[in-house]
Amino acid sequence: MSTLLTGITTSGTPHLGNYVGAIKPSIEKSKDFNKNFLFLADYHSLIKNQDPELTFKSSLKIAAAWIACGINFEKVNFYRQSSIPQILELNWILSSVTPKGILNRAHAYKAAVDVNDKTDPDSGINAGLFNYPILMAADILLFDADFVPVGSDQKQHIEMTRDIAGRFNNSYGETFTLPEPIISTDIPLLPGLDGRKMSKSYNNFIELFSSEKILQKSLNQIVTDSLLPGDPKGTKDSILFDYFSAFLKKERLDGIKKSFEDGAGWGDLKKMLFDIINDELSPLREKYENLINNPNTIEEILSEGEKQAVIHAENKIKEVRETVGIKPLHG
Amino acid sequence: MSTLLTGITTSGTPHLGNYVGAIKPSIEKSKDFNKNFLFLADYHSLIKNQDPELTFKSSLKIAAAWIACGINFEKVNFYRQSSIPQILELNWILSSVTPKGILNRAHAYKAAVDVNDKTDPDSGINAGLFNYPILMAADILLFDADFVPVGSDQKQHIEMTRDIAGRFNNSYGETFTLPEPIISTDIPLLPGLDGRKMSKSYNNFIELFSSEKILQKSLNQIVTDSLLPGDPKGTKDSILFDYFSAFLKKERLDGIKKSFEDGAGWGDLKKMLFDIINDELSPLREKYENLINNPNTIEEILSEGEKQAVIHAENKIKEVRETVGIKPLHG
Repeated sequence: MSTLLTGITTSGTPHLGNYVGAIKPSIEKSKDFNKNFLFLADYHSLIKNQDPELTFKSSLKIAAAWIACGINFEKVNFYRQSSIPQILELNWILSSVTPKGILNRAHAYKAAVDVNDKTDPDSGINAGLFNYPILMAADILLFDADFVPVGSDQKQHIEMTRDIAGRFNNSYGETFTLPEPIISTDIPLLPGLDGRKMSKSYNNFIELFSSEKILQKSLNQIVTDSLLPGDPKGTKDSILFDYFSAFLKKERLDGIKKSFEDGAGWGDLKKMLFDIINDELSPLREKYENLINNPNTIEEILSEGEKQAVIHAENKIKEVRETVGIKPLHG
Repeated sequence: MSTLLTGITTSGTPHLGNYVGAIKPSIEKSKDFNKNFLFLADYHSLIKNQDPELTFKSSLKIAAAWIACGINFEKVNFYRQSSIPQILELNWILSSVTPKGILNRAHAYKAAVDVNDKTDPDSGINAGLFNYPILMAADILLFDADFVPVGSDQKQHIEMTRDIAGRFNNSYGETFTLPEPIISTDIPLLPGLDGRKMSKSYNNFIELFSSEKILQKSLNQIVTDSLLPGDPKGTKDSILFDYFSAFLKKERLDGIKKSFEDGAGWGDLKKMLFDIINDELSPLREKYENLINNPNTIEEILSEGEKQAVIHAENKIKEVRETVGIKPLHG
């Protein structure tokens, strides 16, 4: 029985791009596994964000969003990284078998160095950013995950995790499962309103659970050209069509393509898009709002998942501690 | 009421130099404070030693040695670093406010780089060694220590701890006490049998709780010159006299000095030294052996200290977690 482990970054408010590119496919993918660990990487978020209110609100909103979107709790263990202290304990244990050299070569660290002045390459870089690959290894190895879905830019982290696990196993004997990355190529990419990557920093995003009104207003801002109603429209470089593609299966999408070619007006097409997205999101939005207004429910759901995750974590850390020689002094 | 925190490295078997330079003065120093935290830095030891049996035995022997030498449990909280998971949690939280640059400048890391080839300066260096200053900061800051006794070569670690604490306080508001180092200048230094620093690697050490026979045999190996009985002997560059100095107060030491000047033979002087040291160690050796043969007792003593330390640690980590925005999702 294979185990899938998925980490969720908890920075800010989830947007429509997160929904299409992460939440939906992740919830779908979990059906293929009998055992799933899904966690909010809140301790990771401290590297980038030192605003306590934002840290708190992000966890709240992102937990609510994932729950609203239909995590299958029969198969999925949902928890906060910060509720599993064994992760931080393993993080230290792994530090002592991780060569500093592999951290020097991590993409995220190198990218941060690249934007710095050569005279002070580490300027503004905190130790958390540098050490993050070890924390990620601890996240994964503590739960004996077989598979970890990652973006292609995150593949190196899984390689580093395998490297660290291999070194530990070599020093101390077989202890950790070497995880495999799952890099999905069939996940639709939802661009931002202006066609660039959807991102808070570009201010081209749509909040996932904004009100109907704001959703409609936002969709109306999708950049189009100046073709008039009646003019046949192409779908190839159309941001609007990318949005349809992200939400519709082939059959219905073919119908939309025909409307483009038949010269439907941008306004009508945007209205159609709104209806499609809003139909999908409406029931989820209702659940989301219920959860946000009852944070105790979110806390209860997470606490339940954490109870299970901690049992696994405690067993594993006990094994690891004994393996390295940290154990009760009973002669 | 000031708090003193003392860390004990747990590598190998305690020797006579540890007793004179660390155990005895530390137990003495603890009397000046109403609150003392004294801990075995077993998670630190993994950086240097990846032999589980050695890790285990070192903790056992070093715990037994300190207990045998008379820790005052009324005033001292004695615990293992590895039994306080909050230390590892704080270690991560502090990582996110610690600039990587200050780790680059740590003496221990730079010393390790200096012995390496320039083409691969980080060869053989693990992330634990590089990150150790953060772990040490967590050790200290979690317990709100006011004072930390350190060797003069360790002063930088306290400066780094103060730096890290200051940065956290600046980002999040006053949370941590900035500790002061205590660098004692009146602690006698016990040289090795050959006059170099006493060290396992020089094989010039005397095990603290070796048998009487081995103690006597070892002391007989202290290097002297070839002066005969009857020849007046100087004390200035005498390794043997250094040993007397480490164990005797001024009055009795003056008597020994006179024996040197009066031409006592090396053999007789060594016999006198053995009696002095053995008289001091005999009752401690008995306690030590009792403890080593009853490791359950050591475990019980540590567990008791850990119960208290964990209460403090839980309160502090709760405060820190809330400060950074990691808290229950109750709206």
